[in-house]
Amino acid sequence: MFMKCIVTCFIALLFFGSVSAQNKNEAALKLKINRIIKKMTLEEKIAMLHGNALFSSAGVPRLGIPELTCDDGPLGVREEIKRFDWASANWTTDSATFLPNGSAIAATWNPIMANKYGVVIGEEANARKKNVMLAPAFNICRMPLCGRTYEYYSEDPYLNSQLAIQSVKGIQSQHVAACIKHFAANNQELDRDSVNTIVDERALQEIYFPAFKAAVQQGNAYTVMSAYNKLNGYWCSENGYLLNKVLKGDWGFKGVVMSDWAGTHHTVAAANNGLDIEMGSSGPYDQWYLAKPLLAAVKAGEVSVKTIDDKVGRILWLMYHTSMSTNHPKGAIATPEHTKAAYDIASESIVLLKNDKQLLPLKTSEIKRIAVIGDNAVRTFALGGYGAGVKAKQEVTALEGIKSRFGKTADIRFAQGYRASYLASKTAEQNGDYNEPDQDLINEAVALAKSSDVAILCIGSNREYESEAHDRKSLELPFGEQALVNAVSAVNPNTIIIVMAGAPFDLNEIKKSNHTIVWSWFNGSEAGNALADVLKGTINPSGKLPFTFPASLNDSPAFNLNTYPGNNLTAEYKEGILVGYRWYDTKNIVPLFPFGYGLSYTDFFVSKLSTDKSIYKKDETIHAKFAIKNTGGRNGAEVVQLYVNDPVCSVQRPEKELKAFKKIFLKAGETKTIEMQVKAADLAFYDEAKKGWNTEAGEYVLELGNSSRNIILKTKIAVK
Amino acid sequence: MFMKCIVTCFIALLFFGSVSAQNKNEAALKLKINRIIKKMTLEEKIAMLHGNALFSSAGVPRLGIPELTCDDGPLGVREEIKRFDWASANWTTDSATFLPNGSAIAATWNPIMANKYGVVIGEEANARKKNVMLAPAFNICRMPLCGRTYEYYSEDPYLNSQLAIQSVKGIQSQHVAACIKHFAANNQELDRDSVNTIVDERALQEIYFPAFKAAVQQGNAYTVMSAYNKLNGYWCSENGYLLNKVLKGDWGFKGVVMSDWAGTHHTVAAANNGLDIEMGSSGPYDQWYLAKPLLAAVKAGEVSVKTIDDKVGRILWLMYHTSMSTNHPKGAIATPEHTKAAYDIASESIVLLKNDKQLLPLKTSEIKRIAVIGDNAVRTFALGGYGAGVKAKQEVTALEGIKSRFGKTADIRFAQGYRASYLASKTAEQNGDYNEPDQDLINEAVALAKSSDVAILCIGSNREYESEAHDRKSLELPFGEQALVNAVSAVNPNTIIIVMAGAPFDLNEIKKSNHTIVWSWFNGSEAGNALADVLKGTINPSGKLPFTFPASLNDSPAFNLNTYPGNNLTAEYKEGILVGYRWYDTKNIVPLFPFGYGLSYTDFFVSKLSTDKSIYKKDETIHAKFAIKNTGGRNGAEVVQLYVNDPVCSVQRPEKELKAFKKIFLKAGETKTIEMQVKAADLAFYDEAKKGWNTEAGEYVLELGNSSRNIILKTKIAVK
Repeated sequence: MFMKCIVTCFIALLFFGSVSAQNKNEAALKLKINRIIKKMTLEEKIAMLHGNALFSSAGVPRLGIPELTCDDGPLGVREEIKRFDWASANWTTDSATFLPNGSAIAATWNPIMANKYGVVIGEEANARKKNVMLAPAFNICRMPLCGRTYEYYSEDPYLNSQLAIQSVKGIQSQHVAACIKHFAANNQELDRDSVNTIVDERALQEIYFPAFKAAVQQGNAYTVMSAYNKLNGYWCSENGYLLNKVLKGDWGFKGVVMSDWAGTHHTVAAANNGLDIEMGSSGPYDQWYLAKPLLAAVKAGEVSVKTIDDKVGRILWLMYHTSMSTNHPKGAIATPEHTKAAYDIASESIVLLKNDKQLLPLKTSEIKRIAVIGDNAVRTFALGGYGAGVKAKQEVTALEGIKSRFGKTADIRFAQGYRASYLASKTAEQNGDYNEPDQDLINEAVALAKSSDVAILCIGSNREYESEAHDRKSLELPFGEQALVNAVSAVNPNTIIIVMAGAPFDLNEIKKSNHTIVWSWFNGSEAGNALADVLKGTINPSGKLPFTFPASLNDSPAFNLNTYPGNNLTAEYKEGILVGYRWYDTKNIVPLFPFGYGLSYTDFFVSKLSTDKSIYKKDETIHAKFAIKNTGGRNGAEVVQLYVNDPVCSVQRPEKELKAFKKIFLKAGETKTIEMQVKAADLAFYDEAKKGWNTEAGEYVLELGNSSRNIILKTKIAVK
Repeated sequence: MFMKCIVTCFIALLFFGSVSAQNKNEAALKLKINRIIKKMTLEEKIAMLHGNALFSSAGVPRLGIPELTCDDGPLGVREEIKRFDWASANWTTDSATFLPNGSAIAATWNPIMANKYGVVIGEEANARKKNVMLAPAFNICRMPLCGRTYEYYSEDPYLNSQLAIQSVKGIQSQHVAACIKHFAANNQELDRDSVNTIVDERALQEIYFPAFKAAVQQGNAYTVMSAYNKLNGYWCSENGYLLNKVLKGDWGFKGVVMSDWAGTHHTVAAANNGLDIEMGSSGPYDQWYLAKPLLAAVKAGEVSVKTIDDKVGRILWLMYHTSMSTNHPKGAIATPEHTKAAYDIASESIVLLKNDKQLLPLKTSEIKRIAVIGDNAVRTFALGGYGAGVKAKQEVTALEGIKSRFGKTADIRFAQGYRASYLASKTAEQNGDYNEPDQDLINEAVALAKSSDVAILCIGSNREYESEAHDRKSLELPFGEQALVNAVSAVNPNTIIIVMAGAPFDLNEIKKSNHTIVWSWFNGSEAGNALADVLKGTINPSGKLPFTFPASLNDSPAFNLNTYPGNNLTAEYKEGILVGYRWYDTKNIVPLFPFGYGLSYTDFFVSKLSTDKSIYKKDETIHAKFAIKNTGGRNGAEVVQLYVNDPVCSVQRPEKELKAFKKIFLKAGETKTIEMQVKAADLAFYDEAKKGWNTEAGEYVLELGNSSRNIILKTKIAVK
C-alpha cells in the first residue's frame, strides 16, 4: 500500500512535472517571440500576414525567420505546382501516397486509423518541406449532395471530434501543422463563396463546433482555416464571434487563422476580427487586403500595432512548433509503410451493406470465371477535386486488386459497362444529363456476366462527379448505372454490387433487388487490394456508415425544410440541431441505411450492459460496461456505439446522440468485456438562454447498438 | 521467251487493270458525291465547313452523313477531352500507346518504322472513333531552338519525304485520314500566329515543300493542315498560291485543307483561297468565319456555290475513304503489338554519339553497382506540348528499364542530381533562369557515383522545356546539368552520359570531356527498355542524327543571318535553300555533330561504288551499287547515305544534297551488295526563272557516306 502510494505519487509528479515543464517552455517561448517581434519593423510584420506566392507567406530573412509553406490537401500532399501559378512544377519527386478520403477514414470508426492517416500526411509534408498541411477537413455532412462530403468525416459531432483529434495529432507528431477546415458551417459548395448561413448558436455549439473545439483543445491544432461563406451575416474570415470570441477566446486557441484561398474580403474587418494570414487572393501580392492596405490601416490607427503583434506572435509560435522546431523530422514520401497505412485504413473502411445469400466471402474453389464489370473497376481516383487531388505514386484499381487476389484460381474478364463521362452522348452533354445508359456497353457486359460464375459490378461516382466547388444535383446513380445493374443482375444470379463513392447515393432499387452490396470509397493507393481482400475474406469488413443514407432526398432536413441552397444567398439551417440521424430518428423517418450501419462476415453478441452507478453528479464520469462475443466462425471487428437519450428536458433533445463508441477486434469465439466512459457533463445541451452548457438533472437512457437504428441494450442512469 | 513475255504482259495487265479499276471507282465515287451534294441545302453544306465542337465538324444526319471527328496528335492519340472544352473527359478507356517523337522516328532513318508508327496511330484512332489524325507533323527543322523540333522529322527534305510518305500510308492503311502539317514554313513557335515568313520560291520547292508533295502524291494524304503563320504576306489558311495553286493545282491534291486550331482569319479570303474546314476558332460555332458569315458571303455572291460544292465534295471524298469506307477496321488501343512497335522504333532511334573507351555495351559480369543519376531517369515524357500530349497506358522510365535489364546482376541506386523545374530556386524562377545547379542534389549524386562501378547520367530536356507555343532561348543544357556532369565525371571515370531530348543541344563541353555519350529521345512507352537494351548490347545502336548539331547557335543560318525571330513580325529566310547541312557543308562550318551521324558497336566497310552507266539522259534512273561488310564482331545496321554534288551549275547549289539512303542490317561478318536508285530528274534544282525544275546537263558527283561529313566513296556521272 505504501509502495503503491509512492509509485502513484511518482507518476503524478512525472505527469505534473512534465506539464509544468511544458508550461515553462511555453512561457520561455513567449518571451523569445516577444523579443523577436521587438526587432521587427512594421513592414516586416505585415509581410508575414499575407501570401507571397500561391502557397507561402514571407519570413524575415534578416532575423532568420523562414517563409511559411503550406500545401493541399486532405487526401495526400498534392503535386508540386509552380510558385506563382497553378501549373504543375513537373517534379519527379512529388508522387505521394493517395490516402483514403475523409468519409472512408470516418467509416473505419477507428481513431487509430485517423492517426495513421495524419502521420503519413505529416511525414510526406516534411519530405516536401511543407510546414502547414491544409487538412484535415471535417465540416459536418449536413446535406448529402454537398460536393465535398467525400472529403469530410461524418454527420455526427462526436465521431467527427474523435477522428479530428487523432488526425491532427498524427500530422503534428511530425512537426507539421494541421490546418483544420473550414471554420465554420461551410456545408454546401453551391454559392459557397457568397452564401450567408444562418445557424442558431445551439446548433453551432452542439453540431458544427465540437470537432473544431476538440481538434484545438485536445488535438492542439496549430492552424485553422476560415471558411468561404458568411456565418450569421459576417464572412467567416472576418467573423469576430467565430474567430475572436469562440476560437481564440472561449477555446484558448493560440495558433494561426488563415483564410481559405481567396476568402478574404476586407482589411480592417479581417485584421480586427481574428484573421491572421490572408491566402490565395488575386492581384499583386503587396496589394492584398492584409498587405499595403493593412499597413495604411495601422498608420491610420484603424488596426492597432498590438493586433499586428498578436498575429505575428501566433505565426512565430506556429513556426517554433513546426519549421523552426528542434529535432525536426526529415520526412519521407510514398514509402512502403505509407502504402501499408493506406491499405490498413482502406481495409477497415469498406462497408458491407448486404450479404443476404452469404455470397461473400467468395469461395475461390468454386469460382472459375469472374466477370469484373464497370468503369469504376479500372478508374483511378487520386486526381480531381481541386486541392484534394493527389499525384499518386501508386493506385491499385479494383480490377488490378481482383486479378492479384483471384488471378491464380480464376479467369478474370473485364467489361466497361458504362461510360463515366459528359460524353455519354452529345445530347446528354448538352442537357447536362449524366445518366444515359450506353446500350452497347451494357450488352457487352451482359454477355460477359452470362458466361461467368460471378459478376463483380463496380459502379458509383468519381472525383469529377463529386468535387469541391459544386454540389450534386440529385442522389441518383449516374451514367446509366442502374440500367447496367438491372441488366447484369438479370442474367447472373451471383452479381455483387460494389459502389465506389464518397457520399450517400440512392440505392433503393439496388437494395430491393440485389442481395450483395459492398460500399467502397475513393479508397487510396491500395483501394483495389483492400477491396479484393474483403471479397476474398482475407479482410472481414468492419466499416460502418459515418452518415445516414436517406431513402429519399426530401427526407433529409435541408430539403424537407427547403433550406437548400437558400434564398437570395441566405441558407437558414432551420433544422437546428437535428442534423443526420438526430433528424431521422427524432422525426421517425426510416432511412435507406442508418448512421453507424455495416455488416460483418461473423456475428457478434452484445450482453450485460451495466453502469458503475445509477446516479451521477454533474462532474462525475459514467462507466458503462458490457460483454461482446464473436459468435461466428471468423475473426472480425464490431463497432459498438453508445447513444444517449434524454427523455425529459426543458428543451427539445434529439431522439439519441452518440456519446461513445469503440471498435472491438475479436477472434472467432472470443469474448471481451468492454468499458466505455461518458462524462455526465457531456450529456449537456447548449443552453442559448444561459449562453453555456447545461446538464439538466434527471434520467438518461444509455442505448448500446451497432447502428443508430439497431439498439441492442438499454439502461437508465440519473444525473442529479 | 514467249512465256516470259506472256507473264510480263499478264503482270502489266493486272497492274494497269487495277489502276484502271481504281480510276473507275474514283469516277463512280465522284458521281455518287455529286448526287449527294445535289440533295443538300446550302446551310447543310456550310455546316460541314467549320467545327461544331473542339474536334469535330457537322455531318448531315438526314442524308446519313456522319460528323467528321479528328484528334491530336503526333505522339499518339490524345486523351479524350470534353466536347466543348479542353478539360479531360475522364475516360478509363483512352490510355494510349505513347509513340517515340518525330525526331526519334527520323533518327531511325527507316521508313518501315515510320509506317509502323502510322499503323499504330491509325489502329488506335479507330478504337477511339477518330476519322482524322492530326499527324504526322514534319515541318523542316530550320532553326534548332524551335519548340516543336522534337515533333518534326528532319532538316533534310528527302529524309523528311520518305518518312512522311510512310507514316501517312501507315495511318491511312487503317481508313483513318492523316492530316499532314503544318503547311507551310511554320518553322518557329515564337510569334507563330502572327509572323510573316518570307521564303523564296526555290527554297519552298526544294526545302519546305517536298515532304508535303511526297505525302500527297505518293502517300495520298487525305487532309492537310494549313499553318498558323503568314507565308509571303498571306495567312497560310487563305494563301491562294499555297493551297489553290501548288497543293490543289500543281500537286493534284483531292482531299481537305483544314486550318490549324484558331488559324482562320477571314471568310471570303479563306473560302476562295483553298481552305475547306475552319477548326478551333473561338466564339459561338455558328459565328465562325466559315459558318454564317460564309452563308452571307455566298448569298452576296462573294463566294460561289461551286466553291462550296468543291469543299463539300472534298469532305465527302475524305469520308468515303475513312468513316464511310467499306470494311472499316475496328481498331484497338495500347495492345502488346503497339507496345512492341513503340519498342522497335525506340530501339532503332537511339544514337551513339561517343564510345571512345568502348565502355558500351556494358560488361554485366564486371559491374556490380550501377549509379543511375538524373531527374530524366525517372521522368515520364508522355504528357506536355499541347496537342502532342498522350495519356500513356505505360511508359517505362530509364531507371525502370535499367533495373529490368541489369537488376539481377547489379545493385542499382538512383540519385536525382538536378531538379527540372522552374522552382530550381526562387531567384532563378523570378529571373526565368532554368540553369541553376542544386548543390545538395549534386553532392548526393557524387557520393553515389563514387561508390559505383559505373554512373549512368541521364540529362537533357523535357516536354515542358521543349514544347509547342514557345521556342527555347538557347542551346544550353538546362537545370544545372553541366555542373552535374562535371561533378559526377570527376569522381567516376566510367560515367555514361545519356541525353534525352528532341532537338539539338550544346554538348561541346561534354563532347570534349566525356568519353561515352548516348542520345535518346522522348522515346515513347518503351523508352527505358530500349535504352537499357542499348546499354546492355541486346540492341546495337543504329540511329543517326536527323539534323545537324551546330557547334554554336551563331553558326546556324537563321542566327548567322540574323533572321530569327524576324523584324516587325517578318522573318525573312535569307539562307534560301541553305538549310541544315546544306548550309554547314557549303559554308564549311564544322558542326558539333553532323547530319546523319551515329556510331555502332560494330564496324562497317563500304566499298565498290559503281553506277550502271556513266552518262544518263534526263528521264533515266541512276542505279548505284556498292558493297558493305560488317567487319566487327556484332550484328548491326548501318545507314548508308547517298549525297549528290553538282560542281558546276548556273545557280548556286549546296555542297551536297541527300538523294537516297538505306538502312542495312548485317550479321557479324556478313557482306551485302546494295543498289540505290536516283532519278536523273531528281538532280534538278528549282529554276525560279523558268518556274520549274531544271536538271542541267553536266557532271554530278555521287558521294556515299555514313554522315554528311563522312563521305567514304565518290563517283562521277554525267547527265546529258
